[in-house]
Amino acid sequence: RINGDRLWDSLMDMAKIGPGVAGGNNRQTLTDDDARGRALFQAWCEDAGCTMGLDQMGNMFARREGTDPDALPVYVGSHLDTQPTGGKYDGVLGVLGGLEIIRSLNDLGVKTKHPIVVTNFTNEEGTRFAPAMLSSGVFAGIHEQDWAYARTDAKGLSFGDELERIGWKGAEEVGARKMHAFFELHIEQGPILEAEGKDIGVVTHGQGLWWLQITLTGKDSHTGSTPMNMRKNAGLGMARILERVHEIAMEAQPDAVGAAGHIDVYPNSRNVIPGKVVFTVDFRSPDQAKLDGMKARLEEEGPKIAEDLGLGFEIETAGHFDPVTFDEGCVKAVRDAAERLGYSHRDIVSGAGHDACWINRVAPTAMVMCPCVDGLSHNEAEEITKDWAKAGADVLLHAVVETAVV
Amino acid sequence: RINGDRLWDSLMDMAKIGPGVAGGNNRQTLTDDDARGRALFQAWCEDAGCTMGLDQMGNMFARREGTDPDALPVYVGSHLDTQPTGGKYDGVLGVLGGLEIIRSLNDLGVKTKHPIVVTNFTNEEGTRFAPAMLSSGVFAGIHEQDWAYARTDAKGLSFGDELERIGWKGAEEVGARKMHAFFELHIEQGPILEAEGKDIGVVTHGQGLWWLQITLTGKDSHTGSTPMNMRKNAGLGMARILERVHEIAMEAQPDAVGAAGHIDVYPNSRNVIPGKVVFTVDFRSPDQAKLDGMKARLEEEGPKIAEDLGLGFEIETAGHFDPVTFDEGCVKAVRDAAERLGYSHRDIVSGAGHDACWINRVAPTAMVMCPCVDGLSHNEAEEITKDWAKAGADVLLHAVVETAVV
Ligand SMILES: NC(=O)NCCC(=O)O
Ligand SMILES: NC(=O)NCCC(=O)O
Repeated sequence: RINGDRLWDSLMDMAKIGPGVAGGNNRQTLTDDDARGRALFQAWCEDAGCTMGLDQMGNMFARREGTDPDALPVYVGSHLDTQPTGGKYDGVLGVLGGLEIIRSLNDLGVKTKHPIVVTNFTNEEGTRFAPAMLSSGVFAGIHEQDWAYARTDAKGLSFGDELERIGWKGAEEVGARKMHAFFELHIEQGPILEAEGKDIGVVTHGQGLWWLQITLTGKDSHTGSTPMNMRKNAGLGMARILERVHEIAMEAQPDAVGAAGHIDVYPNSRNVIPGKVVFTVDFRSPDQAKLDGMKARLEEEGPKIAEDLGLGFEIETAGHFDPVTFDEGCVKAVRDAAERLGYSHRDIVSGAGHDACWINRVAPTAMVMCPCVDGLSHNEAEEITKDWAKAGADVLLHAVVETAVV
Repeated sequence: RINGDRLWDSLMDMAKIGPGVAGGNNRQTLTDDDARGRALFQAWCEDAGCTMGLDQMGNMFARREGTDPDALPVYVGSHLDTQPTGGKYDGVLGVLGGLEIIRSLNDLGVKTKHPIVVTNFTNEEGTRFAPAMLSSGVFAGIHEQDWAYARTDAKGLSFGDELERIGWKGAEEVGARKMHAFFELHIEQGPILEAEGKDIGVVTHGQGLWWLQITLTGKDSHTGSTPMNMRKNAGLGMARILERVHEIAMEAQPDAVGAAGHIDVYPNSRNVIPGKVVFTVDFRSPDQAKLDGMKARLEEEGPKIAEDLGLGFEIETAGHFDPVTFDEGCVKAVRDAAERLGYSHRDIVSGAGHDACWINRVAPTAMVMCPCVDGLSHNEAEEITKDWAKAGADVLLHAVVETAVV
């Protein structure tokens, strides 16, 4: 069993870096606080006897040697970056849970045949630079590295430049490492486990996603002196499309969601009819046909809504992944570990995207989930209990060790 | 008659300060470019033999002496500040048209009994600091000066601090001046004059306005893993209220408008359900009952829309003025001038708010309007012809001189 107090203390120490305004964190990717968090993680890993690798996307790899020099490592990990108003556990639990495994194996003097590597993937959240899971995506060969470097934030700064600026661009080729298996521990970010009183979610599948960035182009004009029938109001078009997105998702219930989290209005002046609105629709479902069906409806109906109002309509993909089926063997290792340790558990579908979803393309992969209070995440008030964190890390330990010994 | 070429050259010279990105201007109030524009205007006024007064709101008063030391001045003017993506004429024509009157009177050697004062009012646009017409409002005793100083921009900078910073805070008590009359020349910012082929709008009335800032409070949560029925989506609430604002305005046709130009979404991250949206609804009508009726409906129906979605609803006034009836005598002076000069004209209601609307509370006031291309304003592509500008300034000259000689 892992040391739940030590894990919790590390979570609380990491949360001091890039504090939010309401008890959570704002440690967005490639900020100075991201760099500080990385340095702290590296120091902890080195204290635990690991060597640190760093690739050209800034992905960090803390390695504990195994007994067989030819054996591929078992990887664990997640991400240390947060939302602008994020919680203390989303991603962080998976990284520091991985570190806790190593610390526990050190305490117990246990050697594994395969090395164990704890990973921190860069820019999982995708807020500052879309898409999410950017660097695990490059690792898995989904995105070109140059394309990833060229992603820009709201200020126009590029991922590549910011990675250099904070000093965490490594030399190692991205994706060159081969993995024996990959396990990610993560909070559920949804309400199911807590509602059913389960300690552990055995993640069998992940929802697919479409991020569709829509640009509506109308005409800036005076809110007072422009007659209603002469307006080209991109704000009204956005409002109608948001309502349609909601309808589309509601009609695809139960296993689908849709909303827009990001909306920029131009010129954003009280007495100017918006001449342009850029917003990103987020559709998800574990069912490929539903997922693609929601996108197709928006692509069909969005332009009509725009045309009715005399608006230009452009749509582009800002992020996409298909529904994921995790590796049977790894999933079984997680389920068996929960069972063996006596934790209540159920199979579950991940509502969020995770680095594990991309790594699943290049290595046998599974995820362990633990509950979070009220299913709340991407909110500074995100909360878990120490017992939940401990149970998750225990299961992670056993699944990893089982996979790493043989 | 005024010198149309000289007026046009001055308009083009002023437009070089704080250029926009698409041929217009971004010379927002209390920016460094605003200070540069003021300095240029002051230099021109001094060249024309005027003395410059400056009050504690940064309102500028360029005075040409009259022959009677006891006669109150006739004031003309408007504003030099622009929208973030504004045109070259909105406000500027009224200030530089006033200067052109003085230059023309100098050329002709005409003396008036009353002094003539050309005014540049601070922060007419209200984009950076709401409400619009802030400093003419303080001048007319509508707003407290300390309240005006405390208005903040999107970065949290205050009007008072920024006025000091750019070096244009004067010593003169605001509103201490008494005016014999006030005339404002302005572009129509709407389509009527151009459509009817009229040179001049004789402004008899102005629309009233309500700026209603709405704050919807939901709950930030994950766009992927939060089930549809557990969401408190402030973005969806905003969408529904924007549609309702549109319906309310459409039902109040023909003489009413409604829209929102300003919308801020929090935390504005693609994978976070908006936990808060702040936006400002702009309702206008020349009919007091309609104006107040639109506000009342929004106040009644907005909270229901919010409640349906589990959202908090707050509404506060960010700007307001009642419909305006300009002074009969001054209006007649404008109409007579247009008639005498042989310009085609019609009576018109101003769709926008103007400094003249507040000054009308403390002095006999009227406005002269000239057409603008496609009725387009609050857009960098705002355009007028040199002939339209000349006609407007000619009428202004004659209305002012007629009022200033007796
Ligand atoms: N786990 C998580 O919140 N990842 C961010 C990507 C997503 O929006 O699903
Ligand atoms: N003329 C003008 O655009 N003034 C700004 C105030 C308003 O929105 O009407």
